[in-house]
Parts: sequence; C-alpha cells; structure tokens
Amino acid sequence: MSGGNEAPIGVFDSGIGGLTVVRALRRLLPSESVVYLGDTARVPYGTKSPETVIRYSLNNARFLLGRGVKMLVVACNTASSTALGAMREHFTGIPVIGMVEPGAQAAVLASKSGSIGVIGTRATIESRSYERALRQFGGPSVIMDGEPCPLFVSLAEEGIVDGPIVDLVARRYLERLVSRLPDMDTLILGCTHYPLLSSAIHATVEDLAGHEVTLIDSGESAARVVSDVLDSRGIRSTRNDRGELTVYVTDTSHIREVGSRFLGEELGDIRKVDI
Amino acid sequence: MSGGNEAPIGVFDSGIGGLTVVRALRRLLPSESVVYLGDTARVPYGTKSPETVIRYSLNNARFLLGRGVKMLVVACNTASSTALGAMREHFTGIPVIGMVEPGAQAAVLASKSGSIGVIGTRATIESRSYERALRQFGGPSVIMDGEPCPLFVSLAEEGIVDGPIVDLVARRYLERLVSRLPDMDTLILGCTHYPLLSSAIHATVEDLAGHEVTLIDSGESAARVVSDVLDSRGIRSTRNDRGELTVYVTDTSHIREVGSRFLGEELGDIRKVDI
Repeated sequence: MSGGNEAPIGVFDSGIGGLTVVRALRRLLPSESVVYLGDTARVPYGTKSPETVIRYSLNNARFLLGRGVKMLVVACNTASSTALGAMREHFTGIPVIGMVEPGAQAAVLASKSGSIGVIGTRATIESRSYERALRQFGGPSVIMDGEPCPLFVSLAEEGIVDGPIVDLVARRYLERLVSRLPDMDTLILGCTHYPLLSSAIHATVEDLAGHEVTLIDSGESAARVVSDVLDSRGIRSTRNDRGELTVYVTDTSHIREVGSRFLGEELGDIRKVDI
Repeated sequence: MSGGNEAPIGVFDSGIGGLTVVRALRRLLPSESVVYLGDTARVPYGTKSPETVIRYSLNNARFLLGRGVKMLVVACNTASSTALGAMREHFTGIPVIGMVEPGAQAAVLASKSGSIGVIGTRATIESRSYERALRQFGGPSVIMDGEPCPLFVSLAEEGIVDGPIVDLVARRYLERLVSRLPDMDTLILGCTHYPLLSSAIHATVEDLAGHEVTLIDSGESAARVVSDVLDSRGIRSTRNDRGELTVYVTDTSHIREVGSRFLGEELGDIRKVDI
C-alpha cells in the first residue's frame, strides 16, 4: 500500500495537540520523516459521538495513505479510544499505532502499588479504553480509575500552563481521583494536550496523594512503540540527517502560534486541505 | 421562499450556546415556534477561519430554510461577525438577524460615558465587527475596545459558572480591558455562552473599574430586534398558546445535559442530521 524505509510516518490528531507526539517522535527518531494532519476544522473530537470520531479518523487515515506513509500513528487519545479497531479493519497493509496501548503498558511497568489513574477528555474516559488496556497488560490485580479534565485542553491552548488558575483547576479534578484511588502511584496523561501542564499536574497530584506519583506521557510511550515496530518490520529510515516534517491542517486559524507551542519548535510550511 | 405567520423562526449556532438566545426569544415571544440547529459536529466556530465559518453558516441556513422558517437568527457571535453579509446576499427573501448589530445598538443606548467594552471569542474580537457596529450606531465619539475570553466557553460548558476559578479567569481577562478603558460603563457579552457567567463577570468588572458597569446580553438585544421585525413585516404568530421548539444537532454527544443548562429547561426530542 505504501513503502520503503524512507517513506514518512503518518500522524494525525483532531487538532494541534498531536504535535506533542510528533515532538516525542522526532526526539527519539530524528532521521524519520513525518507527515502530520491536524483536523483543525473539526476539532475537538473529545465532545463528539463515537460514530463521528470514526468517520473523521478514517478520512484522516485515507488522506495520509495518499501521501505514501509507511505507518499510521493516531496521536489523539479520543480517536485511539474509539476508532483504532475500525482503522485496523480498514487498513490492513500498514501498522496502526494508537496512544492507549503504549500508555497503559508503560503505566503497568511503572506502577509498584498497581493503583493507576488516567486523566483525559470526557470521550476518552467514558470509552473505558484505558481500563481495558490496563487489564490486558496488568491483569485483574490492577486497580484503576479515570477522571475527565476537559478544561486542561483550553488552558493548554491558551498558553496558561502554570500559576493559580491551573493549580485550582488541577486540584478540582485531581482531588476527586486521589480520593477514590489513595494508593495511586502512576498517573497516565491520556490527552496529547496535557504534557504542557505536566509540572502543575505533577506537583498537585503528589501534594494531594502525599507520596510520589509517576506521570506517564502517552505520546512518549507511543514513540517507543513506533521505534520497536520500525525495527521489527525492518522499515527504519537509514538517512543520516534529520527527517522532514510536513504539516497539513483542515483549517488554518491560529495554527502557527499554538502549534509552535505544542511542537516546541517553529512550524514551517502549513498546508490547508479540504477532506 | 417560506411563509405564514405561524411558520417557525429558524435559529442556528455552532453548538448549544445559541440556546441562551432561544431562551431570550421564548421569554419575549412565547407564542413563536422556533427551529434550532446546533452544528455540534463542527463546534467551535470561534477558532476557525472566516472561509470555513461562512461555508458552515450557509449550510446551516439552507437546512433551516428547508424547514420552512419565516426568519433566520444567527445565534452565534462568530458567525454573525463573519458570515452575516454572505448570508444576506444568498438569502434575499427572508430577514436575517445577527447578534452584533442588536448588541451594539443596545450598548450605545445604555452607555453614558461612551466608553464601551466587548468580550467574545478570538474570532469575534479579531473580526472587529462590534467596533464597526458601535461606530455605525454611536458615531466617532464612541471609545471601544475588545478582549477575547476563550476560557469562558469551556467554563460555561463544564458548568463552572461561579467560585474562585471563574473569578480568577474573569480577573485575568477583564483587568486588561479595564486598564485600557478606565471609563468603560457598558460591557457587551459578545458570546452566547457568557450569559451563564454574567454574575461573576459583572461583579469582577465593577470591582476592577470602581464604578457601575451595565452588561449587555446580545441574545436579549437580538430577541427585541426579532420582535420589531415580526411587527414591521406583519408576520407575528397569532396563536394563543406556547410555540413549539424543535432542536436539531449535527452530533448528539452530551447535548442533553449541557443543552438543558443553556436553555434553562429540559431539552425535548433532539434529532441528528448529516449536512
């Protein structure tokens, strides 16, 4: 369907949050080229129904396959939670990596108490996808619970990533979770926007729990899985310089400013597509 | 194109925020029937480009015209700011009422100092549509400035409408505006979500300004303009009982809970359409 070691990795998200996953990929796998699609005309997916998220995800994947990608990364927890099965059914010739399984696997490895929390959009938490993945990797002894934290997305997009507003919002969400999971020692950031707030989330959750809590960034975990899959399939890039990054969006408003914040570097050429 | 005094009024918004306008319409004009379309699959419009907002708005209007409405109300400040001209060009047979002109007109009437502030989404503020409308109604002596307050939308949708988080966020946005407009005595709520936070906004802005500030709810102002247009065209409903309310959405997730909060009454039958 697509091919060659030098073909790019295709990554999509509902918006620009998935650029934190691109950042993790480019840090771990600098020679790989990446084609990113942000479906910014339809963002956010987290408040939409599963049928709609599946329809949009299949559209996005078709667009990336048309750009000759060798692998698909669903850099959106909502789409990973609701559309990964449908995508793997539709696109059998290519590996499809989501956010949920890598994050859950890393959390099971990190946790000593076996008590694991997950925060994400309402759609991600209600899909119970992390619960299923944690059971799959950790067995029946894992104790888990989740809490939707929708305001974190708006705060990250506004660039409000620390200070009293973030602390109050973090406390409001996390005290519910800690009261239900007092032994929680591992917390999965189940939304690509949340790594921007990780300092405030980390400080607040440890303060509430009264002990150390390891944060799991699903995007970083997914980058490690991507690396493994490239090796196992023998499709790792062999170039010696830095791979290219091409960014497509379905709507261009405010992408550059917010996107650069998420990517951690200046966004280059951005192309608008109608899909 | 459509007709009769008993035909419904068509109202659309990017999501469920426009239900605060429906609430104002049903309070002022209880015998009128209303058909509402919330484009919840594409919400929010406030972060999208003008071309996209115009395309979606024309789609929404066509759908409502297909339901035989006698008037169109654009219950979305972003769409009113960017798409009203295009809508009036396309749909010449029917009155099209937006949010911006009624809100600006009410503000000019309310202000004694002539210093008027506007808060809304980034798209609404950057469109400068309120500035143009305030100049049109108030002349060159009006002093105005605007401040985008995007977090207010997420807070309203989360049901966080008072308390320390809202106060801190309101202070963060409004102190910029008050420092630029120290004599401001009138503040336009230029987003249909904001009436839910009006108590906190009112208290904060008066505290910062050190004097009374009148809040203008664009939805309430628009309802009064709708009433005037119904009379001037002789198309007011003559029924003696309460008009019907029909709500369409393009995606159904979480509509009932949040929508009822915005409408101020329980949402009845909700129909999903693909447009």
